[in-house]
Amino acid sequence: MSFNSFGRVFRFSTWGESHGPALGAMVDGCPPGLELSEADIQPFLDARRPGQSKYTTQRKEPDQVKILSGVFEGKTTGTPVSLMIENVDQRSKDYSEVAKAYRPGHADYAYDVKYGFRDYRGGGRSSARETAARVAAGAVARLAIPEISIRAWVAEIGGDAIDMANFDSDEIGNNPFFCPDAEAAKRWEALVDGARKDGSSLGAIIACEATGVPAGWGAPVYAKLDSEIAAAMMTINATKGVEIGDGFEAARLRGEDNADAMRPGNEGPRFASNHAGGTAGGISTGQPIFCRVAFKPTSSILTPVDTITRDGEATEIVTKGRHDPCVGIRGVPVVEAMMALVLADQKLLHRAQCG
Amino acid sequence: MSFNSFGRVFRFSTWGESHGPALGAMVDGCPPGLELSEADIQPFLDARRPGQSKYTTQRKEPDQVKILSGVFEGKTTGTPVSLMIENVDQRSKDYSEVAKAYRPGHADYAYDVKYGFRDYRGGGRSSARETAARVAAGAVARLAIPEISIRAWVAEIGGDAIDMANFDSDEIGNNPFFCPDAEAAKRWEALVDGARKDGSSLGAIIACEATGVPAGWGAPVYAKLDSEIAAAMMTINATKGVEIGDGFEAARLRGEDNADAMRPGNEGPRFASNHAGGTAGGISTGQPIFCRVAFKPTSSILTPVDTITRDGEATEIVTKGRHDPCVGIRGVPVVEAMMALVLADQKLLHRAQCG
Amino acid sequence: MSFNSFGRVFRFSTWGESHGPALGAMVDGCPPGLELSEADIQPFLDARRPGQSKYTTQRKEPDQVKILSGVFEGKTTGTPVSLMIENVDQRSKDYSEVAKAYRPGHADYAYDVKYGFRDYRGGGRSSARETAARVAAGAVARLAIPEISIRAWVAEIGGDAIDMANFDSDEIGNNPFFCPDAEAAKRWEALVDGARKDGSSLGAIIACEATGVPAGWGAPVYAKLDSEIAAAMMTINATKGVEIGDGFEAARLRGEDNADAMRPGNEGPRFASNHAGGTAGGISTGQPIFCRVAFKPTSSILTPVDTITRDGEATEIVTKGRHDPCVGIRGVPVVEAMMALVLADQKLLHRAQCG
Amino acid sequence: MSFNSFGRVFRFSTWGESHGPALGAMVDGCPPGLELSEADIQPFLDARRPGQSKYTTQRKEPDQVKILSGVFEGKTTGTPVSLMIENVDQRSKDYSEVAKAYRPGHADYAYDVKYGFRDYRGGGRSSARETAARVAAGAVARLAIPEISIRAWVAEIGGDAIDMANFDSDEIGNNPFFCPDAEAAKRWEALVDGARKDGSSLGAIIACEATGVPAGWGAPVYAKLDSEIAAAMMTINATKGVEIGDGFEAARLRGEDNADAMRPGNEGPRFASNHAGGTAGGISTGQPIFCRVAFKPTSSILTPVDTITRDGEATEIVTKGRHDPCVGIRGVPVVEAMMALVLADQKLLHRAQCG
Repeated sequence: MSFNSFGRVFRFSTWGESHGPALGAMVDGCPPGLELSEADIQPFLDARRPGQSKYTTQRKEPDQVKILSGVFEGKTTGTPVSLMIENVDQRSKDYSEVAKAYRPGHADYAYDVKYGFRDYRGGGRSSARETAARVAAGAVARLAIPEISIRAWVAEIGGDAIDMANFDSDEIGNNPFFCPDAEAAKRWEALVDGARKDGSSLGAIIACEATGVPAGWGAPVYAKLDSEIAAAMMTINATKGVEIGDGFEAARLRGEDNADAMRPGNEGPRFASNHAGGTAGGISTGQPIFCRVAFKPTSSILTPVDTITRDGEATEIVTKGRHDPCVGIRGVPVVEAMMALVLADQKLLHRAQCG
Repeated sequence: MSFNSFGRVFRFSTWGESHGPALGAMVDGCPPGLELSEADIQPFLDARRPGQSKYTTQRKEPDQVKILSGVFEGKTTGTPVSLMIENVDQRSKDYSEVAKAYRPGHADYAYDVKYGFRDYRGGGRSSARETAARVAAGAVARLAIPEISIRAWVAEIGGDAIDMANFDSDEIGNNPFFCPDAEAAKRWEALVDGARKDGSSLGAIIACEATGVPAGWGAPVYAKLDSEIAAAMMTINATKGVEIGDGFEAARLRGEDNADAMRPGNEGPRFASNHAGGTAGGISTGQPIFCRVAFKPTSSILTPVDTITRDGEATEIVTKGRHDPCVGIRGVPVVEAMMALVLADQKLLHRAQCG
Repeated sequence: MSFNSFGRVFRFSTWGESHGPALGAMVDGCPPGLELSEADIQPFLDARRPGQSKYTTQRKEPDQVKILSGVFEGKTTGTPVSLMIENVDQRSKDYSEVAKAYRPGHADYAYDVKYGFRDYRGGGRSSARETAARVAAGAVARLAIPEISIRAWVAEIGGDAIDMANFDSDEIGNNPFFCPDAEAAKRWEALVDGARKDGSSLGAIIACEATGVPAGWGAPVYAKLDSEIAAAMMTINATKGVEIGDGFEAARLRGEDNADAMRPGNEGPRFASNHAGGTAGGISTGQPIFCRVAFKPTSSILTPVDTITRDGEATEIVTKGRHDPCVGIRGVPVVEAMMALVLADQKLLHRAQCG
Repeated sequence: MSFNSFGRVFRFSTWGESHGPALGAMVDGCPPGLELSEADIQPFLDARRPGQSKYTTQRKEPDQVKILSGVFEGKTTGTPVSLMIENVDQRSKDYSEVAKAYRPGHADYAYDVKYGFRDYRGGGRSSARETAARVAAGAVARLAIPEISIRAWVAEIGGDAIDMANFDSDEIGNNPFFCPDAEAAKRWEALVDGARKDGSSLGAIIACEATGVPAGWGAPVYAKLDSEIAAAMMTINATKGVEIGDGFEAARLRGEDNADAMRPGNEGPRFASNHAGGTAGGISTGQPIFCRVAFKPTSSILTPVDTITRDGEATEIVTKGRHDPCVGIRGVPVVEAMMALVLADQKLLHRAQCG
């Protein structure tokens, strides 16, 4: 119901703008007794933090999280966990151009029509800085699902995909692209740097896998796991598509090629394949949950684009400033956070109904 | 929160199984004073109805809707509209095989693990018959958004896509495939019939466009229009992916190619393109809302597939019975219904907050 | 969120009007595997049924419930349980007077202002017939909380209260007033019959007790058990007040007299008293949950009352027809149903968060 | 859904404990364009602030509110308004006794059973300090309903009621009891001071009236205005009862005495009385909304009470520390805040459905 909350029982809300004093998240419904300190959250924020390579925005934000409530003697109490991240590097800048004219691809025009005006400093609430708050919330969610391992990676930048034959999960942390294919990572250096130098930008596709999800999470009909994951991912800035398992490719398979045959296993069935991405009828099957998320190229580019002013006059705009040449890259920790938040909620929902 | 409801203010819930006495929907939050009779709903149910060509399941269901509440003197009263569709053709059949073994791709195994047992007759609650209830609810939603025109079509079957150069919206109703390209429709006859004869099945991609949506609907951050649409579409049986605007293709464009330039127009801006699919920052821009939905091939096929029994023994299964060779085809009215239901809700939510 | 639903995880919705074809309830989130048939529901409907004595309305409704979904082989499947009760005795009557003028105390005027018009036949959606649907839903809820015993009774009619010294729970079913005090029941015969003959009406206070509720249900802050119960009871027609434990009387006690001292017990503490009505900080303590609910006198009376017409003209109205002289009496099974529905929801919510 | 949020469209959440670093509220769904600064909120916090007379707790808290988000150039942007109040006077105290034994009437035992442990410092989340956060949120809500005037007062302390013949709304701010009857206020000085000196405590009844509420707010059946108000009030610490209009007294009236006769008026009807407290069928009638709320006596008293330790051993407890001898007194601004929050939500919900 509320516009800035997500989840049903394990539910979080975020608040804050790019250039306000702080951002934050409130996590409600968290199980009691989980060991939680700022040190459990900070590494995830660090992974998302801007300014760590020339391939991401140069805004410098320490993104230090503070826990303001919900923890006592190092453990969650079952009451709301309030998390705050102060904004530090709100560089004083001339926003008069952005205040006057609409940047295509940005929320500027839509916010103005909806609300009558907008906080134009750094995109206000529509800034990708909001994702810091959800990464913090996601770190709490992970503690509620210790049985599950979640990892995401960049599978494609600007149409250049990784080769799954080269997939090495240890590589993901070894390059600034969260890329599991060392060769692709090398190619992407030139690709992304080229786009940056051109004042252009690139889109990306992120893949995410959650292993250890037991069979039986999710629910018919309007709470299908597929739907919850899709909803979660499509709340992330710049996302334009999501698929579970083979997704759009499944639409090109024949029934017998898409079937995930089952054979007897030690614990539950052994599946011969995972075209479905770990769900059937919207409910987990015990296979890894797999999804892919499409990020459009960053809308802020140096190429002049036709636009209009607030008064409806024709003009051109060039979006200067500190921007990610490929906003998808830093989406990796955000996608992981959203997966953790969805699964923590599903775990609680499942035991609510099914004990 | 509830598992079988969707929407925030204009909210509907559905109930019923494939082989129970009836299916139904309850629409809550409907504005008062809308003219509504069964005749407003029936055409949409007729479009979805099975058994109308050899390309869809041969189950014969009249799918006659009854309005049980919420209408007085031909107008909605503002109280819940209860809709019921009786099941008629629950062919008595031997379900002993399905009761014992799990059909890969179906919800059988997942339901059994989740709930401890399942209604195996025709898939129970996981049957695509549930979509009749939402098509009925969607017809009510359309009345709440008379300013909006929604149409969906099949854009691709089994990897064979329409040619947009041949797009003719009048064609959509002229063939059993909801296909706007007369040439593609011809090709699909052989394609789908071949799959049917082979006991195989095909996937499909459905496109949907809503025109007349004013700028300003949707909301940051966790109620983005993109997210609401993605969630809605991914609740439909057999869907595995959704994209807004260019979707996954946008991830392969450069920033300047993905920008929807704006020029002064008579009412609001004139956009030079619609890569974004009608949203920016999750809020409508006044452009047509455009999405695409991937349907996997029908899981029920005559090819034997390895599986296990409820007792964990290896076996093979062949899914006989009356099935759609391409379940995506009949998804067209369902996709339209979900779009209408999302937009009716967004209209109400927008005026709640913004007057 | 939705106007006609209640509950968070164990959630039910109702639909239907006094003079429509049927009423119904949909119960969502019900745990799977509960044995459920129409015979489990019917006795509760029978207890609420009108026309059983001269002290209640003479409308004759069999109130036969049908289960339309969610049960397979005699057990709940975990999917929505849809319940329907057909309206039978919609006596054809002249409603022209009620259509034109507003009955004071009824929803007539408020509905007209809110919705622009109203279903004036028997009160439409505002009729107490709606409570049949929740009594049916409540019977399902009881199955989800077999550890809990709920009983309600009439504690006071028209200011004449029972004497707790005479309390005998076996008496409750022995008189038409759900009265646990045989002497009071005798007095009430004359009292209620007198009001009926006068064309007047009486208010009542219902008490409800739930035993067997374990400590730990409910949650801070906006989901306190006290708040959930108050919300639930105040959705019942004609209710104007609710109190938990000593309620308003607690406001007149000193701290030491209101304290429920605790002593060691076999299972949890032994409390010396139960002023609190079974909650502390909004969470159950293991003591019986106790509440009282105030019902105003039936608004439909034969005494002429000043009112206005739809056109704003002065007039007088006399509400003829079949009415309960004391609508509170038949509130007993409804109060019990709401208590069961709240507690089933709380049970599920508690295990969602706390395992 | 979430445990620490309230409202449907205008929705707020609170977080924080008595002895944590801060408390806060997030207001989501607030209409854009409302002028809002900290100065609009502070007076309401000041009215609730402790330590202002000897009749309330001596804890010294400045309760300075900070707006962390959702306001730009002095106006609400339509995005979440985050409010924070730092805790200052968390007097270092020996909590070892409270940590070990349960205070009767407090949430200690219930929290321990529910969550396995508890933050025992000053009551943790169950502390009445939480109400500071909702008073801040309520100040924002008031801005969304400028047409409405809300005022609450103490109607009764320890069984000593005001005389409505002496009612003077200007008196409410003239004494430390929010008492509209100057004579009663005088009596209460001795009464409350006596209780304080005795180490005892007193209950209170608060009345609240909202004028200017147009007819048509609220909704059948499970979103009745009566139910929403009851739910809201019963979330406040120490409340045990709520009534709308005549409430429990209505249960003692005959139908003709409880009828609010209507006569033609200039704008809508003129009502001859307001027994109903401004609602009919759960929907506002245009009359003032009136409710009363019962507060139990403060549970913290100096009289020794029997209790048990965490280990189940018998002991006695005396609750030393800084406590309100009558916690109901400071409930006045909290009751007003909750009324404002409910009505802001209802306003938005009404225009969502009814335009």
